Amino acid sequence: MSLTVVGSVAFDALETPFGKRDKILGGAGTHFSLSASFFTDVRAVGVVGGDFGEEEWAVFKRHNINTDDVEVVADGKTFFWKGRYDYDMNTAHTLDTQLNVFETFDPKLSDESKNSRILFLANILPMLQKQVREQCEKAEFVAMDTMNFWISSMKDALIETVKVVDCIIINDAEARQLTDEPNIHKAAKAILDLGLKAVVIKRGEYGATLFTKDSYFVVPAYPLESVFDPTGAGDTFAGGFMGYLASQKEINEETMRRAMIYGSVMASFNVEEFGTERVDRLTQTEINERFAAFKKMTHFDEIPFERAASAS
Amino acid sequence: MSLTVVGSVAFDALETPFGKRDKILGGAGTHFSLSASFFTDVRAVGVVGGDFGEEEWAVFKRHNINTDDVEVVADGKTFFWKGRYDYDMNTAHTLDTQLNVFETFDPKLSDESKNSRILFLANILPMLQKQVREQCEKAEFVAMDTMNFWISSMKDALIETVKVVDCIIINDAEARQLTDEPNIHKAAKAILDLGLKAVVIKRGEYGATLFTKDSYFVVPAYPLESVFDPTGAGDTFAGGFMGYLASQKEINEETMRRAMIYGSVMASFNVEEFGTERVDRLTQTEINERFAAFKKMTHFDEIPFERAASAS
Repeated sequence: MSLTVVGSVAFDALETPFGKRDKILGGAGTHFSLSASFFTDVRAVGVVGGDFGEEEWAVFKRHNINTDDVEVVADGKTFFWKGRYDYDMNTAHTLDTQLNVFETFDPKLSDESKNSRILFLANILPMLQKQVREQCEKAEFVAMDTMNFWISSMKDALIETVKVVDCIIINDAEARQLTDEPNIHKAAKAILDLGLKAVVIKRGEYGATLFTKDSYFVVPAYPLESVFDPTGAGDTFAGGFMGYLASQKEINEETMRRAMIYGSVMASFNVEEFGTERVDRLTQTEINERFAAFKKMTHFDEIPFERAASAS
Repeated sequence: MSLTVVGSVAFDALETPFGKRDKILGGAGTHFSLSASFFTDVRAVGVVGGDFGEEEWAVFKRHNINTDDVEVVADGKTFFWKGRYDYDMNTAHTLDTQLNVFETFDPKLSDESKNSRILFLANILPMLQKQVREQCEKAEFVAMDTMNFWISSMKDALIETVKVVDCIIINDAEARQLTDEPNIHKAAKAILDLGLKAVVIKRGEYGATLFTKDSYFVVPAYPLESVFDPTGAGDTFAGGFMGYLASQKEINEETMRRAMIYGSVMASFNVEEFGTERVDRLTQTEINERFAAFKKMTHFDEIPFERAASAS
C-alpha cells in the first residue's frame, strides 16, 4: 500500500514572534512525506542540491521514506525559502525565494513510484503535476495541492490538471480564487463539478472541511494556545490525510472522514515547533491520543427533541 | 420548566444585498423568545411603545410566549434600529439607533418571572443585568450576552455582572476584547476563571464553541449557500441553547452539547429570511431534521490506527 509524493524539498529560514531559524529542513514534499510516513510506506520524488547534507537525509531515513527518486544535482543548491510570521500566524510574509535546482525540476519516477496505489501532487507547476499523474496509470486515488500564483497566472492549465485528479486539498482563499465564487460551499461544488470525488478545504484555525458529491464533513482545528510555526501545516495535513487513506483497503466516505481527522492531528503537532522538529519525534501513541481528543471535542448524542405538553 | 428572558423588543429597518424592510419586528428579547419557545415555556420581560401593534403581539401569542412583563409605554415609541449589511454578511453597519422607551428601561419582573428555573440576560446595561439576576434567587442556570460598547465603556461593572452568572454567550471579538487576550482559548479560560460554568463563543460562519472547565466542544455552522439576513442570529442561537436546557432535567456537559446544536440549528433557520419570518413558521420536524444533519456532518468513528508491518 505505498504512496508516492512529488514536491519540493527545501531549506527554510524562518522568523516568528517566538524565535528564528536560519536554515532548517522544509519543503512541501518533506512535510508531506514525514507526516504520511506514520501511516504507510512513502516514496518521495524531488530534487536537492549538493548542499543537502547527512542531517537532512537522516530525517527521511529515520522514517523509512524512500528517496531513490530524489535527484541530487551535485553542483546545484537546494530550493531556499525565507519567511516571516507576525502575531497573525495565518499569514506568511515571504522575504526571499531562491528556486535553485527546483527551477528546472523535472520529476523522474521509477517504476516503483509510478506503481503506487496513492499519489499526491504537492504544489508545483500544474503542467508537471499533470504529466506525473499521467505516468501513474495504476494510481487509484490521486490528490493535488496548488497555490494562488498558479491560479492567477495559468488558471486554464491548472483546471486541466484538476480534471485528472480525484481530490484537491487547498485553502479557502484558493478555492474562492479558483472558482470566482465567494461562498465556500458554492466554490467547493463548482470544483466537484470538474469531476472530482472530493474537495478538501483547509481553513487554518477554523479547521478543515471535506466536500463530496453527497456529503459534507467538518473538522475543527485542535485547540492550541500557541502556534509556534505554521510552516508546512497544510502539507502535514495532506500527509496525514493521504497516508491514512493509503493504509486503508477502501477509500470511501467513512475512511475519508477519519483521514480528515488524522490530517488535522498531524497538522496540530506540526505547528507546535519549528519546521519538522515536532513531527520528527512523534509517536503512534501521541497520534492516537490526539485522535481521541478530536472525537471528544466533536461528539454529541443524537436525541430528537419532543416538546413536552405545555404547562401554561 | 420555564425560562425568563430580559431584553429588547424592537422594530428593525434592514438593508441587505437581497432586499430591504422598513419596519419589522426585531430585538434581542424577541429573537431569543421566539427561538426558545420551540423548547419550553418562555416569559419575556421588556418594554415597548404605543406603536407596538396587533401584528407584533400576534407573533408572541402564536408561540405562547408570556408577555405579562412586557411593559407598554402608551405615549412612547418602541426601540428602533436601522442597519445595513453588504456582501460581507458578518458585519452590520448601523445607520440609525433610536432607543426611545428602551432608554429608561427598568425591568419589572413578576413573581412568576422571578421564579423561573432558567434566566437569560440579553444585551442590556450590565448593572441592570446584575439587578435582574439578583432578583431571581431560584434561577438554577443564568446566562448573559453583552456587546463591545459595554466592554469598552464599563468593563469593571460588566465583570461584576459576569461573576454572578453561570454562562456567557458572546462572539469571538467580544471575548478577546473582554480579556485583552488575542488567543480565543486563553480568552475563554480567563472568562471561566471569573467563576463561570460555561463560556459559549459564537464565531459566525465558523460555528460556535463551548468551553467548560474540563472540556471543549466545537459545532460548525450549518452550510448555507446564502445568508439572507443575519440580524438576530446570535439571540436565536441563545434561545435554542437556553430553551433546550430549560427542557432538560439536568444541565451537564451532555445536555449543554446538545443545546449547542439546537442553538446552531435555530440560528441557521433565522438567517434564511428577514427578521423573525423563518423561525415564526418553523416546525418541530424541521428542527429535528436539521439536528440530524448536524450529526451527519460531524460524525466519524473512532478507530485507533495501528501501523501494519512495513513491507520495505
